[in-house]
Amino acid sequence: MSNSFENRTDVNELGEFGLIDHVTKNIALQHDSSIKGVGDDAAVLKFGDKYTVVSTDLLVEGIHFDMMYSPLKHLGYKSIVVNLSDIYAMNAIPKQVTVSMALTNRYSVEAVEALYEGIHLACKNYNVDLVGGDTTSSPSGLTLSITAIGEVDPEKLTLRSGASPGDILCVTGDLGAAYLGLQLLEREKQIYLSNPGIQPDLESQDYLIGRQLKPEARADAIEYFYKNKLVPTAMMDISDGLASDLFHICKQSNVGAFIEEGKVPIHPDTEKKALDFNMDPITAALHGGEDYELLFSIKEEDLDKVRFMPGVFIIGEIIDSKDGIKLHTTGGNIHDLKAQGWKHFDNQEASEN
Amino acid sequence: MSNSFENRTDVNELGEFGLIDHVTKNIALQHDSSIKGVGDDAAVLKFGDKYTVVSTDLLVEGIHFDMMYSPLKHLGYKSIVVNLSDIYAMNAIPKQVTVSMALTNRYSVEAVEALYEGIHLACKNYNVDLVGGDTTSSPSGLTLSITAIGEVDPEKLTLRSGASPGDILCVTGDLGAAYLGLQLLEREKQIYLSNPGIQPDLESQDYLIGRQLKPEARADAIEYFYKNKLVPTAMMDISDGLASDLFHICKQSNVGAFIEEGKVPIHPDTEKKALDFNMDPITAALHGGEDYELLFSIKEEDLDKVRFMPGVFIIGEIIDSKDGIKLHTTGGNIHDLKAQGWKHFDNQEASEN
Repeated sequence: MSNSFENRTDVNELGEFGLIDHVTKNIALQHDSSIKGVGDDAAVLKFGDKYTVVSTDLLVEGIHFDMMYSPLKHLGYKSIVVNLSDIYAMNAIPKQVTVSMALTNRYSVEAVEALYEGIHLACKNYNVDLVGGDTTSSPSGLTLSITAIGEVDPEKLTLRSGASPGDILCVTGDLGAAYLGLQLLEREKQIYLSNPGIQPDLESQDYLIGRQLKPEARADAIEYFYKNKLVPTAMMDISDGLASDLFHICKQSNVGAFIEEGKVPIHPDTEKKALDFNMDPITAALHGGEDYELLFSIKEEDLDKVRFMPGVFIIGEIIDSKDGIKLHTTGGNIHDLKAQGWKHFDNQEASEN
Repeated sequence: MSNSFENRTDVNELGEFGLIDHVTKNIALQHDSSIKGVGDDAAVLKFGDKYTVVSTDLLVEGIHFDMMYSPLKHLGYKSIVVNLSDIYAMNAIPKQVTVSMALTNRYSVEAVEALYEGIHLACKNYNVDLVGGDTTSSPSGLTLSITAIGEVDPEKLTLRSGASPGDILCVTGDLGAAYLGLQLLEREKQIYLSNPGIQPDLESQDYLIGRQLKPEARADAIEYFYKNKLVPTAMMDISDGLASDLFHICKQSNVGAFIEEGKVPIHPDTEKKALDFNMDPITAALHGGEDYELLFSIKEEDLDKVRFMPGVFIIGEIIDSKDGIKLHTTGGNIHDLKAQGWKHFDNQEASEN
């Protein structure tokens, strides 16, 4: 009666992206309303004159969050924000979300209320309607599944695939802070577990912890684009780390990229804490992930339009695909940039008992 | 560092529907495109001239399915079908789905392929496009989150809230078979667990097992409605059991209902197997759940339009709310009909270790 398979290939061998590619590679879209399917921050559908974009995320306890240090209100807030970030990454405006959750009865009604307090606050702050969902029990832990729906004029839609050599590469806000925030929380968790009497030492770490536990999506950037009639050539949100996400843009646009290490924005707190952890700050910025900033490319002629955009940094340019993805270090060397984003499947051995 | 709540209310006290109501009761929709939010089979959005309907479901291993007897291909197929059923229950045509999954590395790539084989087959059979999703690891088990998107002309949209006294109550297909199929599979599982040498005795139980493992959604009913210009006054799909789902229609339409026990359609195999299990067949039909048939009400003047509808049964009528929800038994008695649908939270004590 059990399911057995003679030929067993471990999911780790393909990794998360490989697995998605593998099982969705032969899909041929049938409906006129299906404009763009698997492979970008969100699917693109056409109902009426505008495009509707749809993004969905699963957040799993023990993989994406740890109840030891994730206040439920923040978790609810973040679960919405990370989905809205995908909608903004299409240069679209989010309008609706659905929230589904599976939870054990270890969670009280008060805990669910705290979770929803964060969900409702994010919906209010980003002006989206919570329109549906599903609630069920789970044999263990909490799983959240969020689907966000947004709208965009077809001529404003920004995919990952539109970058061309000569385009300027930009990023909103600083990178690496969310990763350092996570390292801090993990360190304090280990100290707490080995000696529950010691109080956590998270004083003056507000910025890093906040970037990890309560990120914001860059609605302001999209607003600026619309006001200044700027349409990026390609865009995605930085959830897996600058290097990994840049790799997606390059692959789908069939281009290369050149990044100036000295131009990659890093917050002073990130810099200081990285050094405390004996880590090169640029490593956190390139590979950290969960920053939910926007990585986008623009035509060179649009350069003046981003010069005065608040909190935006020009970090490099799009080059020919044959020239690869390169990092020009502050020391004057040129390295190949390798994608080393979070690979949840690789970590599983450790998290599974 | 841990989350603690002084006042602890157990989620079991509210139940699944109570919990959703509790955390979503104060939502005020902000966007013109948000027509109908939480509380029906699907959310209703307006993009262009048509309505877009969106439904989402979470399926959790150990709660909604048991890998001991759920072939992965069937599981993939069913996960799509149960969502499409929600779209049809709005009198809409499904067009797109997204599929997200969290899984442990206990699952091989070949297992995921089998799952997607079923997903792709359902998409093909029901002519929907798979347009996106999210794949991640899980500390334990498999969780599937499916979101389905469909279209409907505003004048055809059928909510749960439109039934009026005098309307005729109908159901597509027979009820209770999926529940008996589950009981059979559970019985064989227990025999197998206590003596793995004994082969399962599922001969000639194809109908009941098939209704549980590989249900179909009633696309044909919606096609018939469109062709015959029939718009039901209220409709929902039977996922929790006729009694429980009828209760939702009555509550949201502010009406009562009168059901003739003798008119409730029960397949001969269901009848026979219920008696084997020492259960009254009508109990399986009223409370079994997972049939994914459509329960709908029509105006009395539309009666001729359903008379020749294949596989449809008239089971009763809508009455005044003050008269309650009644069952007229074959023995000639009139009972109050109580909703006793699946309450996953109640079962959790048993499933959690």
